[in-house]
Amino acid sequence: MIAVDWGTSSFRAYRVDAAGIVHEKREAPLGILQVHGGQFAQALESQVADWIGAGEGPVVMSGMIGSRQGWHEMPYVPCPADADDIAAHMGRVQWDKGREAWLVPGLVTRDAAGVHDVMRGEETQLVGALEQLGPGRHTVCLPGTHSKWVRVEDGRIEGFTTHMTGELFAVLRDHSILGRTMENAGDDPASFDAGVMRSGEPGGLLHHLFGVRAECLAGRLSAEQAHEYLSGLLIGHEVRAAAPGSGTVCLLCSEALAPRYERALASRGLVAHVLDPDSVVRGLHRLSQCIGARA
Amino acid sequence: MIAVDWGTSSFRAYRVDAAGIVHEKREAPLGILQVHGGQFAQALESQVADWIGAGEGPVVMSGMIGSRQGWHEMPYVPCPADADDIAAHMGRVQWDKGREAWLVPGLVTRDAAGVHDVMRGEETQLVGALEQLGPGRHTVCLPGTHSKWVRVEDGRIEGFTTHMTGELFAVLRDHSILGRTMENAGDDPASFDAGVMRSGEPGGLLHHLFGVRAECLAGRLSAEQAHEYLSGLLIGHEVRAAAPGSGTVCLLCSEALAPRYERALASRGLVAHVLDPDSVVRGLHRLSQCIGARA
Repeated sequence: MIAVDWGTSSFRAYRVDAAGIVHEKREAPLGILQVHGGQFAQALESQVADWIGAGEGPVVMSGMIGSRQGWHEMPYVPCPADADDIAAHMGRVQWDKGREAWLVPGLVTRDAAGVHDVMRGEETQLVGALEQLGPGRHTVCLPGTHSKWVRVEDGRIEGFTTHMTGELFAVLRDHSILGRTMENAGDDPASFDAGVMRSGEPGGLLHHLFGVRAECLAGRLSAEQAHEYLSGLLIGHEVRAAAPGSGTVCLLCSEALAPRYERALASRGLVAHVLDPDSVVRGLHRLSQCIGARA
Repeated sequence: MIAVDWGTSSFRAYRVDAAGIVHEKREAPLGILQVHGGQFAQALESQVADWIGAGEGPVVMSGMIGSRQGWHEMPYVPCPADADDIAAHMGRVQWDKGREAWLVPGLVTRDAAGVHDVMRGEETQLVGALEQLGPGRHTVCLPGTHSKWVRVEDGRIEGFTTHMTGELFAVLRDHSILGRTMENAGDDPASFDAGVMRSGEPGGLLHHLFGVRAECLAGRLSAEQAHEYLSGLLIGHEVRAAAPGSGTVCLLCSEALAPRYERALASRGLVAHVLDPDSVVRGLHRLSQCIGARA
């Protein structure tokens, strides 16, 4: 099969055998924002025409390629949903010479107040991680631009909440007054921890954010420290709002982000269990196995 | 006297008589970010040279003109501080022909955890509002880019907290994914109130922010509604974190912002008392009266 992880700013394709082993990988700056005029079929062929020509299939794609701005909009599947529910809502796009590819739908959930939350792409990562998780109840956190906190029970995605942590960090760094006195100098666990600790003090996030500025003016945070302090502050607020009161949180993220979340979780007495981050290919492979019955 | 309200992006000068009556007002796009090469004396003279030449004085200036990026950095005066304390820390800048102007210092406070907070410019607005406030304890809110919540007792500024509400709204509108599905169509109290109500539900601000996006995708918020909903969400979070549990909050802000804060305060059972927003000139006039003894 051909597994395609197609997001806003990146395109990754994998040639995967029946056992789920990846034989080849291709990556290109062909995120959906870089593909103009809806030329998605051409973009896909430019990367994997030889694999398709050699008879490889099916092609299964997930991520923003299934959004309104992508190739074809796939409606969100309501939670609770397991891998079979997601697979049952996959849809096909077709182009020249009868070629076709499958799109994985996103998920939607509603909280007690009826407010919606959505994911698109993460559902495939979760499907790929279900085997590692095993039966029982789990809290899975997928940190990032829009961090997801997911309740999984016996292989079923029960519901989730999204936190705009990564995006807020980026817009504050690049466009707010905080960015003017901030410099990324890499790891600084002490400043990160100070930000996490601050997140638990009174005043709320909007006040804590201005405190980054005030502490810089008071000479108590350097530009380098402010960067990590702000990161700790935001992740601290996220973890306080999203994490359960006790137990283990499974982390599904890059190796760069995992240590930050581990520290923030530890500050709340929570244990982090870091999952294999390459779960999206496993998820696409798992979902491809459901296609035979439908095609 | 000549009262100058000199901020990051605006310059306003007033010719004021001994009784505090404004006789003339001038405004120019000469905020400190628009004045290059430190040419502040020239900028000031370009606006009020005729007033100075006619013997008007003293010149008293407040706002970011007294910051590190301004004409001359004035250290922050620690709270608690009253008008006399602030006046006692005013400083002078001098230029050609022995001309001079006074700068009002900002204020600094520290919370129970030792974290700093600062204001620069608002202290002058507060001095100008003290007479209206009268004796006793008051909570004064100055909404804006960096909203200030100030505890005043018997004419003394006891302490304050800053909330980055206005700036966060602007960066999210202009630079985040939320701005893509948001349009300012003016007043929409129902959407604003829905945002305020959301601020009191579980999940925290980082989650509520993503909810704006999800509710738009779900077709439950239009682009116009999302604008006011986000405003209500942020102001709601600010008021929940900053306002006292009961009583009256004095509002010192533009007529555009007051109704929003009145609505958010009312949702918490708090009464808003809207102060005369033109207090900065009164504050500069009041502080100028302390100069005679020092000059």
